[in-house]
Amino acid sequence: MNFMRKSLLSITAEIGILFYSLFKWIFLAILAGVVVGAAASLFLLILHESIDFVLKYSPWSFVLLPAGLVVSTYLVKTFAPDAAGHGTEKVIEAIHMRSGRIPIVVVPVKLLATVITLSVGGSAGKEGPCAQIGAGITSSMASLFRFNDIDRKKLVVCGISAGFASIFGTPIAGAIFGLEVLFIGQVLYDVLLPSFISGMVAFQTASLLGVEYFKFPVELHATFSESGFVLAIASGVFFGLVALLHIEIIKAVEGLSGKTSIGPYKKAFYGGCLLLVLGLLFGTRYFGLGTETIEQALSGKDVPLLAFFLKPIFTSITLSVGGSGGILTPTFFVGATSGVTFAKIFGLDPMLFACIGFVAVLAGAANTPIAATIMAVELFGSSVTAYAAASCIVAFVISGHRSVYPSQILARPKS
Amino acid sequence: MNFMRKSLLSITAEIGILFYSLFKWIFLAILAGVVVGAAASLFLLILHESIDFVLKYSPWSFVLLPAGLVVSTYLVKTFAPDAAGHGTEKVIEAIHMRSGRIPIVVVPVKLLATVITLSVGGSAGKEGPCAQIGAGITSSMASLFRFNDIDRKKLVVCGISAGFASIFGTPIAGAIFGLEVLFIGQVLYDVLLPSFISGMVAFQTASLLGVEYFKFPVELHATFSESGFVLAIASGVFFGLVALLHIEIIKAVEGLSGKTSIGPYKKAFYGGCLLLVLGLLFGTRYFGLGTETIEQALSGKDVPLLAFFLKPIFTSITLSVGGSGGILTPTFFVGATSGVTFAKIFGLDPMLFACIGFVAVLAGAANTPIAATIMAVELFGSSVTAYAAASCIVAFVISGHRSVYPSQILARPKS
Repeated sequence: MNFMRKSLLSITAEIGILFYSLFKWIFLAILAGVVVGAAASLFLLILHESIDFVLKYSPWSFVLLPAGLVVSTYLVKTFAPDAAGHGTEKVIEAIHMRSGRIPIVVVPVKLLATVITLSVGGSAGKEGPCAQIGAGITSSMASLFRFNDIDRKKLVVCGISAGFASIFGTPIAGAIFGLEVLFIGQVLYDVLLPSFISGMVAFQTASLLGVEYFKFPVELHATFSESGFVLAIASGVFFGLVALLHIEIIKAVEGLSGKTSIGPYKKAFYGGCLLLVLGLLFGTRYFGLGTETIEQALSGKDVPLLAFFLKPIFTSITLSVGGSGGILTPTFFVGATSGVTFAKIFGLDPMLFACIGFVAVLAGAANTPIAATIMAVELFGSSVTAYAAASCIVAFVISGHRSVYPSQILARPKS
Repeated sequence: MNFMRKSLLSITAEIGILFYSLFKWIFLAILAGVVVGAAASLFLLILHESIDFVLKYSPWSFVLLPAGLVVSTYLVKTFAPDAAGHGTEKVIEAIHMRSGRIPIVVVPVKLLATVITLSVGGSAGKEGPCAQIGAGITSSMASLFRFNDIDRKKLVVCGISAGFASIFGTPIAGAIFGLEVLFIGQVLYDVLLPSFISGMVAFQTASLLGVEYFKFPVELHATFSESGFVLAIASGVFFGLVALLHIEIIKAVEGLSGKTSIGPYKKAFYGGCLLLVLGLLFGTRYFGLGTETIEQALSGKDVPLLAFFLKPIFTSITLSVGGSGGILTPTFFVGATSGVTFAKIFGLDPMLFACIGFVAVLAGAANTPIAATIMAVELFGSSVTAYAAASCIVAFVISGHRSVYPSQILARPKS
């Protein structure tokens, strides 16, 4: 029985270490969740108040665009050059290049610059900045606790997950997104537990503080059929190509903008003027977050057939001339509207495919098929799971090893 | 515009390669799904007919146990020594050690030996053998197509996913389980698409052929609350320890059995007699698959408080003396009954915690938190997602780097 005693001892020791680590990380995760959830709520409150305030003077308020972009450029250049560019991308870069070190000044600067960019009508997202705020706060917490690089990275990943969870309104998908987005083809299982708890706590905190999320008109009741499944796979091919287009437009515009040799403030001003001209041509729905258009698409209402093509142009101009913000909301915009387009072309249910496109283009553009599928379950109910998973996985494969986030590291090829 | 032309060309070439690979693997995945789904249906049909036939003579039929185990030992030793041991473990070993090479003779031998073991009352599961059948068939397909080792491995993983999907009755969880179970802390993203399609097609094939799945009395409607979430996390600690106990009992009994120096047929016979004695002492519910007890637990009915402790003893004796079968059904048995025990101890809803235990012990024992969470959504509806995810992830962390499958390779530590 000696071997049993030894095995019992080793199990006891192992469990002891596990429990210590477990309680430490549950505590840290809850702390990070509460703080990031509260900060995200503050960000969203200021953002929505500002957007509403400016919208009162709409459509004339849009003439503020060039000036707004200049101010955003000034803020970021002067106080936090690290906060330039779109949110999630900078966070991924910080994790991979600097063990998650993000200066705390990024938090207020990013918050303010994003609020200004979005309120004057710049086309950008709010998720990335929120992840950046979460990462900035947890990075400072790690410095306060004198964490080593490994623990710092883990805590910052929790902060990212908390940021996403509190802004997506889908806590599980948000938490998993934070774990899946850092690499292509890898989930960070070692941070699974604390990230998940941070995400859930941040979401609950934000909800308690009165944050309201996307309202979906009705839970989908899709009945599974073989032909429906084949269509879902076909839609995945389409959404994968749309994701690819989205990625390439952003890259091309950023490349063109990087090649122009005018100074940053002039660039911001001219970029703003260009956006105004585009807005006159194609309408104001491409300005700002575009929440209304996303909701229209998800309720199966009509949207312009080429909306999914125009949104990335507006977004890439906004971000490449100095606007601050993320690209996830625009990605949702592209996904939902391209779903309506797909449904119109093939005579299908626009609402169902807007919902599938919403998650599938995310899966393809950000390389997060698991988080996107879970998001579908959280948003649209479990009846849509098989279709959403099929479309997300195909879109993920189709987009290849490209990404809206150039800093993502390829951990495992897709096929 | 030269760089745009070049970039366009490279995208076109990339898409071409992608589409070729896509169509090849969709075709292979559908083929594997249909064949494995049909074979799994045949296996299940023979299994259930045999169990029903023998049960008519119950309880006297259990005296066949020693003889049945001797026959199972004879079959496996003579015709397919590779098919010895529990199913999933052998499949994981084949993938890691022999690029998925599994002789086709394993398929009929495993089928027959498992049917005999389970019909006479041996305590074992049907999932592992089914995964082994799927792997054996796809390995032969790969030889037929003269695949290289990389493609063979991928196709065999599809076969495994198809086997699980057609027997779990939860196609998405089944497919993901096949991708998550090979390593600890790694999902095989490069086989995500074909595995998923194989799983869906196999499940549809089995359903069309009349396979029926676990019936759950009613979809759960859990309303999320903070205290419920804390309880779910606490239950994860309990279920993780239960998973650990399950793993250690199996390991200890296998170790003891390996140390006895009597011949294999005598061992099978004495093992069968020992099981009969245990059955007389603790009842017949621990014989066979134990489906009835699992269903009782999941409907919130009373089960013995220590059922979760007795089942692994019956199972490990059955498997270590030459019985053929898997350990997933026993793991579900342990999970569901330990959930009832947990609920009784703390005065909670036994049905809810039986459902959570069902997936959480799986997550802890097999190290598959994502597949287990998806399984909860597929079986119990999306209202239980947050609780199930919390419990599964905690159980996964608690069980440490142990596993019911010693061949699992550690790809990423859990914390």
